[in-house]
Amino acid sequence: MAMVDISSKPEVFREATATGTIKLNTKTIRLIKDGKIAKGDPIYTAKIAGILAAKKTSTLIPLCHPLPLTNVEVEIEVLDKSTMQITSTVKTKAQTGVEMEALVATAISLLTIWDMVKQYEKNVKGQYPFTAIENIRVVKKIKEGVVGERKRKKT
Amino acid sequence: MAMVDISSKPEVFREATATGTIKLNTKTIRLIKDGKIAKGDPIYTAKIAGILAAKKTSTLIPLCHPLPLTNVEVEIEVLDKSTMQITSTVKTKAQTGVEMEALVATAISLLTIWDMVKQYEKNVKGQYPFTAIENIRVVKKIKEGVVGERKRKKT
Amino acid sequence: MAMVDISSKPEVFREATATGTIKLNTKTIRLIKDGKIAKGDPIYTAKIAGILAAKKTSTLIPLCHPLPLTNVEVEIEVLDKSTMQITSTVKTKAQTGVEMEALVATAISLLTIWDMVKQYEKNVKGQYPFTAIENIRVVKKIKEGVVGERKRKKT
Amino acid sequence: MAMVDISSKPEVFREATATGTIKLNTKTIRLIKDGKIAKGDPIYTAKIAGILAAKKTSTLIPLCHPLPLTNVEVEIEVLDKSTMQITSTVKTKAQTGVEMEALVATAISLLTIWDMVKQYEKNVKGQYPFTAIENIRVVKKIKEGVVGERKRKKT
Amino acid sequence: MAMVDISSKPEVFREATATGTIKLNTKTIRLIKDGKIAKGDPIYTAKIAGILAAKKTSTLIPLCHPLPLTNVEVEIEVLDKSTMQITSTVKTKAQTGVEMEALVATAISLLTIWDMVKQYEKNVKGQYPFTAIENIRVVKKIKEGVVGERKRKKT
Amino acid sequence: MAMVDISSKPEVFREATATGTIKLNTKTIRLIKDGKIAKGDPIYTAKIAGILAAKKTSTLIPLCHPLPLTNVEVEIEVLDKSTMQITSTVKTKAQTGVEMEALVATAISLLTIWDMVKQYEKNVKGQYPFTAIENIRVVKKIKEGVVGERKRKKT
Repeated sequence: MAMVDISSKPEVFREATATGTIKLNTKTIRLIKDGKIAKGDPIYTAKIAGILAAKKTSTLIPLCHPLPLTNVEVEIEVLDKSTMQITSTVKTKAQTGVEMEALVATAISLLTIWDMVKQYEKNVKGQYPFTAIENIRVVKKIKEGVVGERKRKKT
Repeated sequence: MAMVDISSKPEVFREATATGTIKLNTKTIRLIKDGKIAKGDPIYTAKIAGILAAKKTSTLIPLCHPLPLTNVEVEIEVLDKSTMQITSTVKTKAQTGVEMEALVATAISLLTIWDMVKQYEKNVKGQYPFTAIENIRVVKKIKEGVVGERKRKKT
Repeated sequence: MAMVDISSKPEVFREATATGTIKLNTKTIRLIKDGKIAKGDPIYTAKIAGILAAKKTSTLIPLCHPLPLTNVEVEIEVLDKSTMQITSTVKTKAQTGVEMEALVATAISLLTIWDMVKQYEKNVKGQYPFTAIENIRVVKKIKEGVVGERKRKKT
Repeated sequence: MAMVDISSKPEVFREATATGTIKLNTKTIRLIKDGKIAKGDPIYTAKIAGILAAKKTSTLIPLCHPLPLTNVEVEIEVLDKSTMQITSTVKTKAQTGVEMEALVATAISLLTIWDMVKQYEKNVKGQYPFTAIENIRVVKKIKEGVVGERKRKKT
Repeated sequence: MAMVDISSKPEVFREATATGTIKLNTKTIRLIKDGKIAKGDPIYTAKIAGILAAKKTSTLIPLCHPLPLTNVEVEIEVLDKSTMQITSTVKTKAQTGVEMEALVATAISLLTIWDMVKQYEKNVKGQYPFTAIENIRVVKKIKEGVVGERKRKKT
Repeated sequence: MAMVDISSKPEVFREATATGTIKLNTKTIRLIKDGKIAKGDPIYTAKIAGILAAKKTSTLIPLCHPLPLTNVEVEIEVLDKSTMQITSTVKTKAQTGVEMEALVATAISLLTIWDMVKQYEKNVKGQYPFTAIENIRVVKKIKEGVVGERKRKKT
């Protein structure tokens, strides 16, 4: 077991975008839209949590290299009445790609949304019968001029 | 915006279990089963990453309380020829639940699997047309004697 | 040099509140009020940064004990046309007080405001002739029933 | 809300210096000078805490970029019989400045002084009527040859 | 693989002491004693590094539980003209012991000494022919009244 | 006290290798070889812990610079019936060397082995009469083409 040795790879511009969705009760989505979540704004909190998490990727994923990220952006939108979607884009000039950083930002942002709306998603037994995080994917990876993009599919 | 004030809540035994799956190419699953992944053992690495991540939950999810976890366990199994499932269970004696810790462990374990098998999942353009993390859910939450369990559904 | 040994002290309810202010250009304060800061909402970002920092106190201040915080709250208000004030309150049930946690939350929140509005505070030479953080104080410390409060003074 | 995208900015030498003061009881300052603080040497401890904190800036201030710091120096002096001053200087070769790193080093150093002398600053009610951190400022920022300096003002 | 489940164990007072030594050139030891190490005081820096590291044990050693340490103390002495010894003692009231915390404090303190005196230990080829860390051991573990102590042996 | 200022040093390829051993009971070594350690695989867990620790070096050793590591590899072998040896190699392209990173990886890996086999090493009084970490050394340091190597000595 070992990190990939990137010592002799050139430093080039890299960018990666990852998305994911969270299923919430219709009522919860409405409360988010109306700015009525008691613990605070789930969208803003999730964005910050995602950006901070991207910067911690190499301490969370054992074999990731520490990279000098030059940009992290997390976007959150309501897809339909029971789904929110998060899209994280990370950039660097480095010897390896940043898809793991984009994925970590997306996953931690989605989990932060969950944490912010826990009280509305739990049933009387304290369980979460409906809430689910789905379809975390890498939708774009760029390596110095070579652009690849894949149609985003929804499950 | 504020953390929930749990100062006056009693410290009771808490347990939570979260699951999630990752879709991989059939070839990749076979390589994992055969112990042939070049970077190391994805299953063992993912378990450790998940356990470590559970302990960092309150620094990743902004409004989570720091909790004295008494157990974290991460189990990984091959569900079918293109799906692996991760199940994380976290325990504590504390004033609030540990579902976020179980979810963080599951999410970071799933992402670690992804990182370990990246080279087999990327296509010639460096994109990930198939790989996806799906269906992260809380499947059980226990609060001192009150047990709730929900049928695990697969998407 | 050594941590204070709190092994034989009883666990009691503790609370501490710390405040501090930041001097900003009048124009910057107006932009904050109008929600027009390009990097995002300084107030919301500062609150989250402060809460997260409070939880990291024992890794930042060498001789602080790790404590199971039960609540952290950060409030931010515009005091006058060139001053914002931050008030952080931290609670725990522990063997030692939480004034350092309240102070760390306040200091990091104030620094986060600075970071969010940097571009409006810098002059043409890239310097900050006006911006300053002032008067970080502990304004209240409570130890199980013994309440002490001090008149907040402005400098 | 988003980090500033510095992907296309050149890497140039950067330096920033931040200062701040802490008001302490005259008796406490004398104990520090005489090397009689029970918990250890506040000055040495504060310097180390400041240097370590500078390196954590991008995990404390949400929108800061991770930067490869090439130098951090923290200086502490007794300004007068009730005031200590901390001056932190940070250097890097990077795409953005290091004033936040210098400010974080200064703030955490000042808070560490407070923590080291807590027992001498608290009154019989456990409150801190006198202790205060004041006037945290950026006093110099350099960007590859362009030097700017501002007269340090005391409040 | 899994953490040991300590959920049903009682919280009792625990203490552990670990020691270790570092071999240095006679000249280096003399410089330390004379307070002439250019980077700063190795002893004081090592103590702080050890205390901070003890508090990070559960994020460094994968299966360690997060514990509410009530005391960490690191002592450093010159054993003979080419050996320094570090002794770290950690206390808690918890469901499991703190020997790993004492060992981590000792190991990181020893490594910090090394870092502080690197320039005096390197030969002209930049190698360290003499420097070595030796004999890191747990010399005492206490569990609520049950005291065990072992004769410290030097290798 | 201050970090060494490396601002004007050139970025060159650097590599360092550090080794260390742990003395364990013969019975424990046999259990490791037979894959029968109850807590999991000590070797695999130690490798991951070492790699993660190398990446945290600048937050553990106060005056270390944050460096963009391009490779970390940890190898573990059974030297004889009561000794395991760990060898960590770290690479970077940076303005200063990575021997501290290699040493931190080795030390934390060795401590992780200890943690994984604690139950087999403790005697009936809960003490560790036999277990010891020994002979942590830097065995090789490379700086852009200049190779130095030292015969590994066993104590």
